[in-house]
Amino acid sequence: MIKVILLGAGNVATHLYKAFAKVENVTVVQVYNRQLKGLEHFNNQVAITTLLSDLKKADVYIISIADDAIAKFSKTLSLKNELVVHTSGSIAMDNLDDHNKKGVFYPLQSFTKGKDIDFKQIPICIEAYNKKDEILLTQLANSISENVHIINSKQRKSLHLAAVFVNNFVNHLYTIGEDICQKNNVSFDILKPLIQETAKKIIDLSPADSQTGPAKRNDKKVIALQLSELKNKTQQDIYQIITQSITAKYGNKL
Amino acid sequence: MIKVILLGAGNVATHLYKAFAKVENVTVVQVYNRQLKGLEHFNNQVAITTLLSDLKKADVYIISIADDAIAKFSKTLSLKNELVVHTSGSIAMDNLDDHNKKGVFYPLQSFTKGKDIDFKQIPICIEAYNKKDEILLTQLANSISENVHIINSKQRKSLHLAAVFVNNFVNHLYTIGEDICQKNNVSFDILKPLIQETAKKIIDLSPADSQTGPAKRNDKKVIALQLSELKNKTQQDIYQIITQSITAKYGNKL
Repeated sequence: MIKVILLGAGNVATHLYKAFAKVENVTVVQVYNRQLKGLEHFNNQVAITTLLSDLKKADVYIISIADDAIAKFSKTLSLKNELVVHTSGSIAMDNLDDHNKKGVFYPLQSFTKGKDIDFKQIPICIEAYNKKDEILLTQLANSISENVHIINSKQRKSLHLAAVFVNNFVNHLYTIGEDICQKNNVSFDILKPLIQETAKKIIDLSPADSQTGPAKRNDKKVIALQLSELKNKTQQDIYQIITQSITAKYGNKL
Repeated sequence: MIKVILLGAGNVATHLYKAFAKVENVTVVQVYNRQLKGLEHFNNQVAITTLLSDLKKADVYIISIADDAIAKFSKTLSLKNELVVHTSGSIAMDNLDDHNKKGVFYPLQSFTKGKDIDFKQIPICIEAYNKKDEILLTQLANSISENVHIINSKQRKSLHLAAVFVNNFVNHLYTIGEDICQKNNVSFDILKPLIQETAKKIIDLSPADSQTGPAKRNDKKVIALQLSELKNKTQQDIYQIITQSITAKYGNKL
């Protein structure tokens, strides 16, 4: 049985709690949060506390708070030589305080409040200083996911950067698509099957091999027409720079 | 029974042929292509021809060729007062020649050669000058898809523009994600569940409400770090401009 304490009560902590609660070899013994607010939905299910001095004993302490608060928070823990990990994609393991054994337990997914998630397919990226801790974290990850990877801090940082492109930025392009539809009285719903197919295609095919469209064909006429159709300067700039990037990559100069 | 002749033998024509072949109320009576090459995979299944003078009689003639060849090609047809439609997202219906009745039959999807596709969910956008033709094209579209829309040329043009953002440009962001992974020795596979989830999320939620990430939070520290991590100038430019667009939209100035 692996005993876990969650430090933080946000989105990731809540989803981790739900996932751990479903499996037999893990017990969440306590959830800590600085404020009582946020802990309400854990109450009556597990011990909760707002006092770091009240922390119980566990095998793994999982810090799941805002990235820029992790380093400082880890210094305030009065634990000694315990395994303390964080769940962040962008923060190096070394940022954790030296009084404890360090590790990372990073679930690579975009979590939405209130939306239940199946952890089985979610990649969990593990890092630890010593082999024993790495094995324990891997066990913990395997209990909720079938997609566990040992990833060092440098690799994790680049994964997080790539995730900004394929998740945050992609979602913003969806938003621009929705905006164009709304301005022209067409339902954005008509684009949804295409969006799903675009994502599905790269499961088996490299995105570099799936590229299509006017930029790939270097179809200057359509490109000029579409640029003139965009009335928003920022959208024009985005159209232009991504088009240039595509034509440059596939060997056609604009 | 609706009789159809396909003019063109490319990706869209091939997928349409397969879809029509499966349903009872449609017969493809002939497939035309300028060259014999491309017609091989239709041979023995349906009448084929490379001569416009050999065209049979049909209820609908579907031009499915490169966008910039449509107008000129439609002039070369010796048909008179027949229903002649094209399958393009970006070409206005009016570009078709005046000797025939005009229409559009635009399946909004990105077709990949050799990859079979289920037409049921694919939106088909219909346009016609007169109601009778609109009804016939709608019937034809309904026979293969459950997602049929009456869309005028202006709306279709904007749909096509939005599709460039949510399909072509999104795929290019996937490509950048893959590039970052490769340069840092991490498997791009780790990002695939996130990519699927990002696409699935917008089925029920507006993308404007799904936005997350450093740009949305206006997290200047992470943004500066990630920009410095990118070694490719074009990738830096794309990162910067989309980040600016997100922070501007969500009310935070950089």
